[in-house]
Order: sequence, then C-alpha cells, then structure tokens
Amino acid sequence: MINTHPFYDEHGDKLREECGVFGAINADDAAAATALGLHALQHRGQEAVGISSFDGKQFYTRRGLGHVAENFSSQESIAELPGFMASGHVRYSTTGGAGLRNVQPLYAELATGGFAIAHNGNISNAGTLREELVRKGAIFQSTSDTEVIIHLVATSRYPTLRDKLIDALRLVEGAYALIVMTPQGMIACRDPLGIRPLQMGKIGDAVTFASETVAFDVVGAEFERQVDPGELVEVGLDGKVTSHRPFGSGAARPCIFEHVYFSRPDSIFDGRSVYEARKAIGTQLAIENPCDADLVVPVPDSGVPAAIGYAQESGVPFELGIIRSHYVGRTFIQPSDGARHSGVKRKHNANRGLVEGKRIVLIDDSIVRGTTSMKIVEMMRDAGATEVHFRVASPPTAHSCFYGVDTPERSKLLAAQMDVEPMREYIRADSLAFVSIDGLYRAVGEKPRDAACPQFCDACFTGDYPTSLTDLSLKEDGAAQLSFPVNKVA
Amino acid sequence: MINTHPFYDEHGDKLREECGVFGAINADDAAAATALGLHALQHRGQEAVGISSFDGKQFYTRRGLGHVAENFSSQESIAELPGFMASGHVRYSTTGGAGLRNVQPLYAELATGGFAIAHNGNISNAGTLREELVRKGAIFQSTSDTEVIIHLVATSRYPTLRDKLIDALRLVEGAYALIVMTPQGMIACRDPLGIRPLQMGKIGDAVTFASETVAFDVVGAEFERQVDPGELVEVGLDGKVTSHRPFGSGAARPCIFEHVYFSRPDSIFDGRSVYEARKAIGTQLAIENPCDADLVVPVPDSGVPAAIGYAQESGVPFELGIIRSHYVGRTFIQPSDGARHSGVKRKHNANRGLVEGKRIVLIDDSIVRGTTSMKIVEMMRDAGATEVHFRVASPPTAHSCFYGVDTPERSKLLAAQMDVEPMREYIRADSLAFVSIDGLYRAVGEKPRDAACPQFCDACFTGDYPTSLTDLSLKEDGAAQLSFPVNKVA
Amino acid sequence: MINTHPFYDEHGDKLREECGVFGAINADDAAAATALGLHALQHRGQEAVGISSFDGKQFYTRRGLGHVAENFSSQESIAELPGFMASGHVRYSTTGGAGLRNVQPLYAELATGGFAIAHNGNISNAGTLREELVRKGAIFQSTSDTEVIIHLVATSRYPTLRDKLIDALRLVEGAYALIVMTPQGMIACRDPLGIRPLQMGKIGDAVTFASETVAFDVVGAEFERQVDPGELVEVGLDGKVTSHRPFGSGAARPCIFEHVYFSRPDSIFDGRSVYEARKAIGTQLAIENPCDADLVVPVPDSGVPAAIGYAQESGVPFELGIIRSHYVGRTFIQPSDGARHSGVKRKHNANRGLVEGKRIVLIDDSIVRGTTSMKIVEMMRDAGATEVHFRVASPPTAHSCFYGVDTPERSKLLAAQMDVEPMREYIRADSLAFVSIDGLYRAVGEKPRDAACPQFCDACFTGDYPTSLTDLSLKEDGAAQLSFPVNKVA
Amino acid sequence: MINTHPFYDEHGDKLREECGVFGAINADDAAAATALGLHALQHRGQEAVGISSFDGKQFYTRRGLGHVAENFSSQESIAELPGFMASGHVRYSTTGGAGLRNVQPLYAELATGGFAIAHNGNISNAGTLREELVRKGAIFQSTSDTEVIIHLVATSRYPTLRDKLIDALRLVEGAYALIVMTPQGMIACRDPLGIRPLQMGKIGDAVTFASETVAFDVVGAEFERQVDPGELVEVGLDGKVTSHRPFGSGAARPCIFEHVYFSRPDSIFDGRSVYEARKAIGTQLAIENPCDADLVVPVPDSGVPAAIGYAQESGVPFELGIIRSHYVGRTFIQPSDGARHSGVKRKHNANRGLVEGKRIVLIDDSIVRGTTSMKIVEMMRDAGATEVHFRVASPPTAHSCFYGVDTPERSKLLAAQMDVEPMREYIRADSLAFVSIDGLYRAVGEKPRDAACPQFCDACFTGDYPTSLTDLSLKEDGAAQLSFPVNKVA
Repeated sequence: MINTHPFYDEHGDKLREECGVFGAINADDAAAATALGLHALQHRGQEAVGISSFDGKQFYTRRGLGHVAENFSSQESIAELPGFMASGHVRYSTTGGAGLRNVQPLYAELATGGFAIAHNGNISNAGTLREELVRKGAIFQSTSDTEVIIHLVATSRYPTLRDKLIDALRLVEGAYALIVMTPQGMIACRDPLGIRPLQMGKIGDAVTFASETVAFDVVGAEFERQVDPGELVEVGLDGKVTSHRPFGSGAARPCIFEHVYFSRPDSIFDGRSVYEARKAIGTQLAIENPCDADLVVPVPDSGVPAAIGYAQESGVPFELGIIRSHYVGRTFIQPSDGARHSGVKRKHNANRGLVEGKRIVLIDDSIVRGTTSMKIVEMMRDAGATEVHFRVASPPTAHSCFYGVDTPERSKLLAAQMDVEPMREYIRADSLAFVSIDGLYRAVGEKPRDAACPQFCDACFTGDYPTSLTDLSLKEDGAAQLSFPVNKVA
Repeated sequence: MINTHPFYDEHGDKLREECGVFGAINADDAAAATALGLHALQHRGQEAVGISSFDGKQFYTRRGLGHVAENFSSQESIAELPGFMASGHVRYSTTGGAGLRNVQPLYAELATGGFAIAHNGNISNAGTLREELVRKGAIFQSTSDTEVIIHLVATSRYPTLRDKLIDALRLVEGAYALIVMTPQGMIACRDPLGIRPLQMGKIGDAVTFASETVAFDVVGAEFERQVDPGELVEVGLDGKVTSHRPFGSGAARPCIFEHVYFSRPDSIFDGRSVYEARKAIGTQLAIENPCDADLVVPVPDSGVPAAIGYAQESGVPFELGIIRSHYVGRTFIQPSDGARHSGVKRKHNANRGLVEGKRIVLIDDSIVRGTTSMKIVEMMRDAGATEVHFRVASPPTAHSCFYGVDTPERSKLLAAQMDVEPMREYIRADSLAFVSIDGLYRAVGEKPRDAACPQFCDACFTGDYPTSLTDLSLKEDGAAQLSFPVNKVA
Repeated sequence: MINTHPFYDEHGDKLREECGVFGAINADDAAAATALGLHALQHRGQEAVGISSFDGKQFYTRRGLGHVAENFSSQESIAELPGFMASGHVRYSTTGGAGLRNVQPLYAELATGGFAIAHNGNISNAGTLREELVRKGAIFQSTSDTEVIIHLVATSRYPTLRDKLIDALRLVEGAYALIVMTPQGMIACRDPLGIRPLQMGKIGDAVTFASETVAFDVVGAEFERQVDPGELVEVGLDGKVTSHRPFGSGAARPCIFEHVYFSRPDSIFDGRSVYEARKAIGTQLAIENPCDADLVVPVPDSGVPAAIGYAQESGVPFELGIIRSHYVGRTFIQPSDGARHSGVKRKHNANRGLVEGKRIVLIDDSIVRGTTSMKIVEMMRDAGATEVHFRVASPPTAHSCFYGVDTPERSKLLAAQMDVEPMREYIRADSLAFVSIDGLYRAVGEKPRDAACPQFCDACFTGDYPTSLTDLSLKEDGAAQLSFPVNKVA
Repeated sequence: MINTHPFYDEHGDKLREECGVFGAINADDAAAATALGLHALQHRGQEAVGISSFDGKQFYTRRGLGHVAENFSSQESIAELPGFMASGHVRYSTTGGAGLRNVQPLYAELATGGFAIAHNGNISNAGTLREELVRKGAIFQSTSDTEVIIHLVATSRYPTLRDKLIDALRLVEGAYALIVMTPQGMIACRDPLGIRPLQMGKIGDAVTFASETVAFDVVGAEFERQVDPGELVEVGLDGKVTSHRPFGSGAARPCIFEHVYFSRPDSIFDGRSVYEARKAIGTQLAIENPCDADLVVPVPDSGVPAAIGYAQESGVPFELGIIRSHYVGRTFIQPSDGARHSGVKRKHNANRGLVEGKRIVLIDDSIVRGTTSMKIVEMMRDAGATEVHFRVASPPTAHSCFYGVDTPERSKLLAAQMDVEPMREYIRADSLAFVSIDGLYRAVGEKPRDAACPQFCDACFTGDYPTSLTDLSLKEDGAAQLSFPVNKVA
C-alpha cells in the first residue's frame, strides 16, 4: 500500500482527522454510491476502509487496508455488497493484518437482527465502560472504542433498536458522528456538542449522510442540511425521515479545526464555505500580522487558501515558491552523499528560480511539532530567499485532542513547550506570527470567543475540553493519552 | 497498482511524456541516489521503473511495474543494486506482466562486457532497422525501439564501446536522451536536435545526469549544465569527463512542450525556469486574449502557473474555483442515481461557494481531445458560474508527436478536426482563445518563431517535424502511428 | 493455495476429519514445536491453521488459510509467537477471506484474563445455546460452534477459569477434544464419550497434547497416554499435572472411523497401532470375502495397509496396479478431445503394463458417494483387467456424522440409497463386498459389537448416535444438517 | 510456492531429472491438453512451467514459477493460449523472479517467423558456442543452454526452418529431446544417442509428444511409439507426419536412470514397463544379495516397486515400516527440545508398532550423498528394529551427470569417496549391498553390459560418458561443473 495523498505527513507534523463516514438508504446502488462518497472523503482517513450493505434480508460487509480505490473500485467488490442501503467508513489505523478487526463498519448479530455501525469521533470513557462490560461477560472482538456502543446496545433492555441505541449513547461521553444500519433502516446521530460533523443529502428518493458535503457533489446528491448536534435522524425503509432530540438541547461546540485544516476546501461546514473561511483566516492574519515582503508563498497544499487571502489583503503577490510532489508516502534510503533534507524535498521543493533574492512570507495552516516548518524555512534560505517570515493560519496548537483526531502527545507539541519567540528561533524564521483565537472566530463568521460558553471546540488551542475525560482521569501521572486495553491478536 | 499522480488523466486528455532518466557515477550510494532522482522524475513516467548498477565487476538490474516508491524504497531493493555507478528509467507502458520485458534500463552481455541503456525519446526508424537486424539473425527480447540501439552496438565493428555506440547512433533517426553504462564508465548523449532534455549535475566527486534539474535538488546535487544537443559526454571510472560532438554541429530544436506541460515547474529547462516560463505564457495570454471576468480559475494543477500570470497581468483575482482530489487513478462503478460526470468530479470538483454567480476565466495548459474541457465548463455552470471563458496556455494541438510523447492519434485531436470557434461550441464555453505560436516563443524568451529554422520542435502545434519519419512513410494509408512489430509474449 | 495432499478428494468422495489440535506447555520453543506438531497433523485439516502462544504476560495469535508450512515455516512467523506455552489447530473450512474469523484457536479477553481455545469435534446443540446467549446480549465474532463455549465461560459465575469451563461444558452436547490456554496454564479435555481422540506426551519438562501420536514422533516427544474420555487434564505453569473427572464415569465410545481412515497409519489410537488395525481389517475382509484373482490392488494411499493384509491372508500377490500422482488439488480445463475421466486419472492412473489381462481385487477403505469407485473400476477395465472385484475395509457408510466430520448429506451416501448388489451394479464391479461390523470390531481388537452398549461410535455405519442431536431435532423436515445461523460478513 | 511432491528431497539426496516436455498439434484445445500433459509430467520438474501456443497467426507464451496446477488450471490462463498447436515445459531452476527468463519454451521472432523451443537435456558445449555467438553480436536473453540453439538457427543460412534447425543441431553436443514450434508445424527431435526420452502419441487427428507415456494416459491419447534416437519428426499443419534421420544411424544409449528413478512407474520407457523394470531390479537384488530378515521395508515412494520385487523373490513379507508424509517441501524452525532428525521425520516416520523388535531390509532406489540413508537407518533403530539391512536398487552412484540431470558435484557423491564397506559404516547399517551393473542391465531386459558399446548411458555408475564434454574440458582443475557464464539480472 502506498500513501500518496495530499496531506500525508510522514513526520507526524500535522493533526490527522481520524475518520470519515458515508451512508445511503433507498438508493438503487447503495454500495456503489457509498464507495464513491468515501472516495471523496479519502483525506479523512487513508489506512483502511469498509462498507456494509443490506438487501432487505441480509447484511454484507467488506473491509480492506489502504485506499477506497484499492478496495472498492472493481465490479466484483461492489457486487459483493448488494442492496438498497449501505454505509461506509474510512479511517487511520495502525497497519498490519491485525488492523482489519478494527476497520469499520463494525457489525454484530443481535437478538433483534443485524446492527452495523460507522463512527467518526472518539469515546472518552470507552475504557471504563469496556471494563464493566467485560466483567459482565461481554467478549470484545476489536480494540475499537466504537465496539463499546454495540455491547451497550446488545445488553440494553429497551425494546426497539433505536431506543437501545439512545439508551447506550446516554452512557457514552466524548465525540461521535454515527451512521447505524438495522433491518428497520438507517440512523444518523451526532453527539450533543456536535464536535464531529455530519451532513445530510438527497438523491431522488434516496437519503444520504456524509462527514462532508464534498461527498454529495461527487455522488451527485443535493446537500440538504447538517445533522444537528444532539440530533438523531431515523430513515425508514419506507423513506420516512424522523428527527429525534434524545439528549435535550444545549449549546453546540463543533470542532473549529475542521475549518482550519481537516475538511476539504470545497465542503460546506457549519453553514460556511471552508474555502472562504480559510481565505478569511488569511485575510485576518494579514491584518493582524502584516509583513514587508516580495512574495506570499503557501506551504502547499493546505496553506494555499489562507495564502490567497493574505496576498489579496496585503497586496504582496501570491506565488508558488514551493512546488509539491504528489508522489509521497514512502521513506527512501538516504544516499550518503549530499541529499540534506531530502525527505522534505521529496515532498516540497523550493522553486529556486522564483525565490532567489526575495523576501518571502510563508503561510501554513498550523504548526504541530515544528520540525517540518524548520526544514522548509531552511530550504527557502538555501534557495536564496533573503528573508523568511512565517505566518500561521491558526493559533498555537498547545493541547492534545481526545475527540477522534490523531495528535502527538502534548510533550511533542511545539507550542506546549515554548512561547512564540522561542518557536521563531526554533524554526529559524525572521518573524513568526499566528492568527489570534478571536481573529480565528471572526474569520469563520462568529463573534469573538465567548469564554463562558465558547462557540466551538477549540481545546487544541485553549485546553478547554468540552466534556469530561473519564478514561484520562484514571491515570495518575496525567499522561496525555486515554488508556485503553490493547491485546496483540493478529 | 494505483496511480494517484497529479497529471493522471484517465480520459487520455493530456499528452504524456513517456520517460525520465537518471544516472550517477562515482557515487557512494549510486542506486539510492538513482532511486531518489527517479522519484523526483516520477511525473515523466508512472507505469514502470528500473535501475541498473555496476560495482566494478558485475551489473545488477531490478525492474518493476508501478511507481518508484513501490519498487525502490526498501532497504532490500537498494541492497540488490550495489556499486558506485547506477542509472534508471521511469516510463509509461502498457501494463501487464509482459511489460517487464520492455522496462528499461535494457541490459545485454556483449562480447566486450555488459551494456545497460536508458532512453528517453523515440527512434522513428526503429521498425526499419529492426527488420534488417532480424534478417541478419538478431533475436530481440523486447518490443522496445531502444533495443535496436543495443543490436547495432553489438554488431558494430568499431573496437571500443563508445565508438560502437556512435556508429550505432549514426543509423538512428528521431529523438533520444540516453544514459549508457559500460564497464568503462557512463555515457550520456542527446540527439543532434536535442529534442528531449538531459541535464548534468554534480555531488562532490560524483557526476549525475537527469532529464530534469528537479532531480538534482532532491538528491542534493548541484546543477552544472545541460548536455548539449548532439553532445556525447563520457565519464570514466576515474572521474574524467570528456565531451564529444560526433554528429557535427547544427541548430537545435528542443521540445517546446516541456515548457508548456511536461517538466515540473521547479525545473530549469533550456536555461529558463519552467515556472517563470509558464507564468509568462499566462501573461502573454492575458495580453493577447483579455477577458472581462470576476475570477481567474486554473484547471489544477497544470494550469496554475499560467493562471497566476494571467491574473497578475489582468488584475482579475486568482482563486481556486476547482478543487482537485489527489486520490485519483481508478474508475469506480457508477451508481445509477445522479452522479453525472462523477468521473471528472472525483478529480476536479467545483468550489461551489466561490463560483456561484461569478464570471470566470478558466486557464488550462492545453486542449487535446477536449472531452475533459467540456465537462469542466459544464461543471462550472452547474455550480452557478454565469459566464465561463476558456483560455489555453499553448496553441491548438493539432499533430501527433513521434518523439517519445504519447499522443492520441491525429483523428482524436480536437484541433486537428476543427477551428477555434467550433471548438468553443464543442466545449460550450462563452469564449475560447489560445496563446499564439509567436506569443509562446516570446514567453519562453525567444524571438518569434523563425519559420525557416524554428528554434524549437513544435510539431504538435505546426506539423513541422524536424526529422524524417522513416517507419511512418512505410504506411500507405498515412495512419498516424509508427509501425512496429509487436508479438504477444507474456 | 494449492492442496496437494494424500487424501485430497475433489469429488467429495471421502469423509473428512475436520480438525487436529496440538499444544505444548513449559517448552522452550512452544510455538515452533506446535508448528511442527500441527504439520504432522496436516491430514486432519488442510484449509486453515492457527497458533496462539503465551509468554507469561500476553497472548499472541496468528492465523492463516492453507497449510501449516505455508503459514508457519518462516522464522518471522514463529518469532511473532513468543512464550513457553502454545496451542494450535488445523481445520477444514470454506475458503475465502471471511474464513479467518473461524480459524482457531479462538481467543477472547475475559475479565479474568486471556482465554484461547482449540477444538476438535462438533457441538450438536450449538445453535440452541447460541440463540439463548445472543438473547442475553452476547455478540458472536464467528460462526464457529466453538465460540459458544467461550461465551458460556465468560458468563459463568464460577470463580476460576477451570470451574467456569467445567460449568460451560456441562451445557454442551456432542464431541469435543479441547486444548485451552489461560494465564494459569493449559487444560486438555475430552468429552464424556471420548468421541474425538486426544493424546498426551512429554519432552523433558514440557507437557504436550495432540490429536494423534504421530505428532509426538515428529516433535521428538514421548507418548505418555491418551486423555481419557470425560477427563480434564490441567497443567500449571509450575508443571504440575492434575486430572479431573468432572462428568463422572461412563462407557466411552471413541470414533471407529479413526482406525478406518482418519488417523495416520503410524499413529497409536485407543492403544492400538492404526497400521496393524488396518492390516487386520484387510485380513478379516479376506476371510469374510475371499476372491479368486491374480492381483490385490490397493486404491492408494488409504487402501494400502488393508490390501497388504488382504494379500497376506489370501496369498494373492500385492501389486501397485494404480499409481497415484501427488500433484493433485486443482481442476484443469478439460480438452474436448479424448481425456475421459481425466479428473480421476490425474490422481489415479492405471498401471497398464501390470493390469492387462489380469483378474484384480481392488481394496479401498470405504465407499461414500461411489462416484470415484465407479471411475476406478472403469479405468481398470480400460487398462485391460479381465475381472474387477471390489472389497471395502469398512461396512457400508449409510449415515451422516455430526461429531466433527465432514460428511455429504445422507441423500448423497450411496449406501443410504441402496443395498450391496445395486451398489455393485452402480460401480460396475464384478463383485463387491464390505467387511462386517462385527468383523471390524474384531479387527480392531474388540469383541463383536455390543448392541446395548457399543464399544465405539459407529453411527456412520449404524445410525446409532451416542448423543442427542438438539439442533437437528429443531428441524421439522428431518434434513440431515445441523442448523446454525450463518451471516455473510467478509 | 510450496513444494509438496513425492520425490522432493530437501537434502539434495536424490538425482533430479531436470525437465519434462509435452506438445500437441492439430488439437482442438492444444493448450488445455498441454497443461494436463505437463501436469502428468510434474515429477520431472517442479519449479517452473511454461506453455506456448500458435493459432495460425500468432504465438502466445505464458510462464510461471511453481507447479502446473498453480499456473495453468484456470480458465483465464488457458484462454490466453489460443490455437491448435501448443507445447510446454516443466523444469527445475533456481527460484526467484530472475528465473522467469530461463523458463521454457523459449521464444524468438526470427526473420522467417516465430520459433518456440522446449528442451529436455543439456548441451555440453553450450558455453563454447555461446562465447562465439556473442563475439559475432548475438545478444542472449537467458542463461539457458537452450538459447544457443535458437541463435544458431537464427544465423543459419539454410532456407527452411527445419534445415536451419538441423544445421544448428549438428554443432551441438550433449543430450536433447526437443519440441519445436514454427508457423509451419511442430518438430520433435531426439539427440543421436537418445539419452533423454521422447514419446509420440495420438488423439484423433492430433499428434502429441511427451517425455513419458503417462502424459498420454492422462490426456486420453494413445501411445504410438517413441521418437527414435537421432530421429527428427516433423508434423505439418495439414497433419502430415515426416520422419528424418539427419545424423545418420548409430547405436543408441538411453539413460538407464529413467528406469531406476526418474520416470513414473506407470510409464513405458524404451519399450518396457517402468514398474516391471523396477520390480525386476528388486528381484535381481534379492537374488544377488539375499538377507535373513522379518520384514522388507521400502523407503517410500521410490523404493516401493523394487521392495515388492525383493519381497516376492525372497518370501520376506513386504510391510510399510516407514510412513511418508505428503506435506513436505519447507524447512521448519527447529524447537530446541527433542526433535532429533525432525527434518527427516517430517517426511518419513517410522511405523513404530510394526518395526519394534524386528529385523528389517530397507530397499531404496539409490544412494547419492548418503545423509538421508544414514538418518533413516538410525530412525529404524530408534523405533526398535534389531537389525537394519540396506539394499539398493542401482549400482553405486559415483559420477556426475552432464545430460540434464541435477547431480551434486562429484565430491559430494558418497560412492565417489569410498567403497561399499565404508559406506555401510557411514550409514550405520548392519549390511549394505547394491545391485550389480550387469544385474541392472538384465533386469531391464538387456544382456549384460557391453563394455565396448554399452546399451545405455550409465555414466553416473561407470563414468563412461557417451559424448565429449567440451565446456568441461576448458576447466583446468577438472571441477565437475560445466562452465557457463551467468549474469545476475533480476
């Protein structure tokens, strides 16, 4: 398997959204549409993919490691997934044969029939719930936090699967955007804070759900509306759509990093164009942190929209001072001669003819560990740039995420270790500035951050986590990882 | 094998450079450097790759289908290629097990020792030469035109391998940039017209050759100079570099399409930055064909530099109105509901939030068949664009290439069938314009085209082929493909 | 995967033992010994193999489709299974990716720690138990009957794993020879009737268990004794061996077909040499059914020992009138010319030079569907045999087995459909005779069959099943397959 | 790839026939018949297989590593080989991707059309011829000696392909049984001494050739006659069969080891049943070397027919004292406890219950290195045999073969190093005896060996090579391998 994707980051120097989900019900070719939809969500998870379908009688599931196209582009693979209802999942995961157990949708035969679940997010009390369930005799198939939901459903005493699911989710804390299939239909559900996104669309009589609206564009669906935070949408086999609010109503806190980096720029998230939001962040960044320079250079591809905004606001021309290769994903053997930073150069090469003798402003979406930033600054100088200024389209990333995003542990986050000036020294830029948290809120169309009741989950910037972190608090030493029992079974 | 590359074009709607070559001699880790260098040339050929090395005693060769990273990133693969001299090749080819026979470097044991050859280009009298050689008892291993050179060398009566090679090349017509390895050292050679590019670089005592300078950046080499048209550069095991001009001197005619599309924008070709050349073409295009519009939108990625030039010249803002996915290369099963043009949309999706209600100028590098252009125009309109103007950063492509570029047969080239106005109707744009041939020459830093002695090979635009096309003339019906015997041997 | 095994039978014309198990505790290289032991048991199951190990801290499991040698001969595969305790399993199963879920040892994390189980046999009330467990919220990972035992253990209220296991087995009906691993040690257990075999051996301080003694020969262990019917042997990490009889004592009924066909001739089963038993059956067959002929010809390889016995008793010379190929297991495309019965001939070819003009007695171990027997008789005639007499070293196989043997459904068993004379006509032999049931008992060293309390399970001959068949009785139509819910999840 | 074949010998302790060939012309399904025929010849070469076909217009070739069934049992593989003429080859070779170049049939496009050749045997002046051809400009694709024939044909000045082939073969020395395909038909040819076998058969109008008659049995062909030593049989597309004797006539010397070991016992070779020949050798062995013992035990499977002959002659009962496993071909990791000789035991296990307390005569076909013989004697004693006598159904193997048989170099042959009594000591038998060379000749139906003009090639026993060994004589040190240039090209 080769990973050649735009946001691939072999140095662990980006946060990584961990999943994308897609579902379609009452569609003629539900599995084919799901494959295409997941392909459009490939950037949300590139290491494994699964699709389940239901044909009115039976459930079918097919999983694989690697990209959607590697696993679900053949006629045969789709033919194994008959039926009018299907859902799928793309995810990051540790590779290896073992991984297949954790590839979603997870499926179980319950007494009331089949139950397939695809989950984007992370359950922050999964370890605690799992221990209790195992004590009662439950046998887990995977090391996935999602399986906890299935066991809670299986042992719930409510009569219907929908009520069993609600019963289960009441015990669960953390972030979840779920697509569930039962013999009665499809249920899409978002946690009360709406941390992870979930959108709803339509193709003729078929109803579809997806993590991002770009999936609707690709499958030819119309975007209808988002699934609201705390909402459970039920779609019957007869096409009837019912909305439930089982958790009452409260203020939502969707993840602001979807705007900064995770979502594709052509998606609509939280009612806003992601591309426009990113450009607005660039504009805001130019207002807050102007810079006397010859060129605005994006760190491709994620820095491009913000760089366009920065260039338009500042009047400094936008130029491709870094050319990225699209053939990435493997580490090569390093020849002993020359080849300094060839790892970075394989991905990002200085456009030497352009950069030489120029003062440049580099625009990137975020700084995580800072190692790549440092190398890119150096590469610019090696190519002859006379000044290198670094502008970041998000506030300093100083805290780990426990809601379904793969973050380095806190001690590896550059901003958790030092202030901006030492960061500038570390990456060896002539200047370094971040957009402010209030500037970020404004750029995405909100009022400045309401500290009492923030409009977004911005815990990665502020450390203000919107839920309790039960499994985390079990640890004495305060280490930044959720505990979760893992057994090595290939 | 999954092709997820930037210029991948499942509709055959781009010309495709057929090869890239790289070589290094007197390098500590010649094969590792070659793998890295080929990886930087991956866009020149993505279906097969091979590397040969020499350790002073023996030659080693390893070939594979797919990307460089899939075949040469492991420690084991490089360990199979010991020695201080190595050369490699990336190519397009028809896939399938059979293909391996044609993957270069081709290698033969001659009476005077091993002989490995990597070739970018195409020999336009290969069929004729092959027939003659077979008549004399030669047995061909491949269907590659390059093998003709080896047999000519094997049967040459000159004493040294260098002189045998010169003897052979005198019989050959067409385009070639060659890297040859013998037990005596490395020979790099470019045809008298210099149709295909070949560059020379240096890392410490090691000498390197590559199709493009970007390979030097990635391996950490310094770019020295190009190998001149008609030049044969010999590098001995002792490091001595000798230049020969066996074919006399004459005017060169390098391929102008390298500037338009083939080369990476961060390469230097023919003494000019490719990025700057492309921006200049965009500027020229804006001067020749201005347009009253709200946004300049590149067809990504190849249209981006010209679009920046066009935007800067015209003052119309540059915006990403099309977002490209990087996960391309497979055809998916089409669901029967919706999903119009999902093939194109999987690759290029309209940035709906931006485009809606706007007048846009689309910038693309070229139009080949026109099928993709038509779909992109339609996609822009579906996303709400009120006007769609199409500007092309090259003249109409109206003739096939016989010099190592994969062109559709002439009858499939849109510009071979019709004038500009019917082309506009075909792709359904509000206006359509191409840069002029003289404008193109000017943009790449030359005087207007000298019709008597053109400064470039521009046969794809003008039909003015700089060499005779012997194999072609054998055909009575004037079909646009070179004849070459192909036998199906798996 | 290619099946090239001695008893492979593409026509479904043999009964197939479904599993073999092996375990070793307190051994230096427990997994390596287990791989070797399973390899010696390969004839008991050739489609999938798994090994689990325990190193005092953690359990490790590795599974694969195909032969032991394909999955466990590499250094790497054994290195993934560290520890001083290991157990493994070979099995038949439907092939395909899905199958891996059912490959044993099955493993679960229980509240009291890891639990790995390898099972030879079949639980005849598994469907009933499973339905009840699912009703209570249990989620099954596999479609294997063995998983029922794990869930019963997980939900048992007894304090120790040994007592939980006994508690679980009290609910279970059918045949089982089990090897269980827990963090406290290894438990080997055989059902009260001892239907399936289980042997105990010793290498230094290590204790080993295996389905057949041949595994001890190959790993270099000494055969100690069999695990008795209804016995549960517990071996602690300290080496202490304890024997339990949790099910009281009763008469055993081991499977008599182990002597006829399943076990390797060099194994000791039930205190008797299998080779000697088979020769004795041949002797008995000659006494009961003599024949005036020139040659005794075994149907290789399973008919060889009985043919030697028959020849020695009758004085007719033993000759290889049929030569078997060892390269079997795939169906070839049939050429339209000639090639009658090429399927059988690829496996069994007449030794024409020997057979021509002779009267022969063919000796086979059993007749199941009769299709192969018919073709072999015809092949003998085509090769020039003047008379073909058929003698079978077991009574007519007229009933399905529900204890872990893959039998065709009853309607496909030739002996279920007709008497001996029509069978003779069907296979077109000059004469046909079977050993009598009492003769069979005598040959294996017993008194004639005690109808009130038979000394063996001989249900396949007599229809006298030693246990109730709960799942079977759920079916109204009396179809001969146990019901068991199967969900297609790849 | 797993080798699980009857004669597999991981200790290099058998001679190995290197090839088998099969061809069919004017057959409806030539490739399907060839696949089936090669499958029946699988024992003659198990590491690679290839088939070429011709449909009147074009040649098709497909090659693979491993068994016939692995490569040619699918509908798709046969569909790739259309046409009414096909030929194929099974061979031993060093494994690895590189090997495919050497897999036959070799194919070349000559000026007069396609030419495919399958060769059983070895050309003992191939190195010398090759050097000369390379000097003249020939480029070799493989390291196979067979390719020399193709180059000689390609450069022959005779007009027809048949005459070019005869011209080529006149230069060639050594052993060859060839099946050649040209656009004019099929040519089968055997070297003047007829060292390697080649048989001719018929199915309806189709003519077939094969190394052994067993292939005819399996494809349903009738055996017609052998291709005579020095005969060239030409079969036209019109079905006309012509016999040529281009090399004059002389005494033949077919390989006597085909009777001893290489051929399948159900084949007819040189007009004799191989099974009967082997039994007769056993009879002769019993006459020459009787033994007072309780059991005659064959080393399976190759020793079985001779053991039956020995038992019938001596009156000592034939018994399976060694049981062989059919699951062989891989080396397992050796556990450190116990497991002495587990390598041998995985293949051959003592039938302990039978052997204990008995005096046994072991019968094997030959002794090569002696290592396996030694282990088997020891295994018999470990199992309780009181006396172990060893009888060998061939004379001592004291010389290497250079005619297409894989022999260890002479220094590894036990009989090249010592006389019979030290051999007995080495293998630790109580007695050891070989059949005499004259006894062997007599057993296969000939008069005693005619030293002036031996009726067989028996060089492996006598060192009397029937041809000159040109390449060998080039070596000064007299090392026992033919020299042949090998270049490592993967």
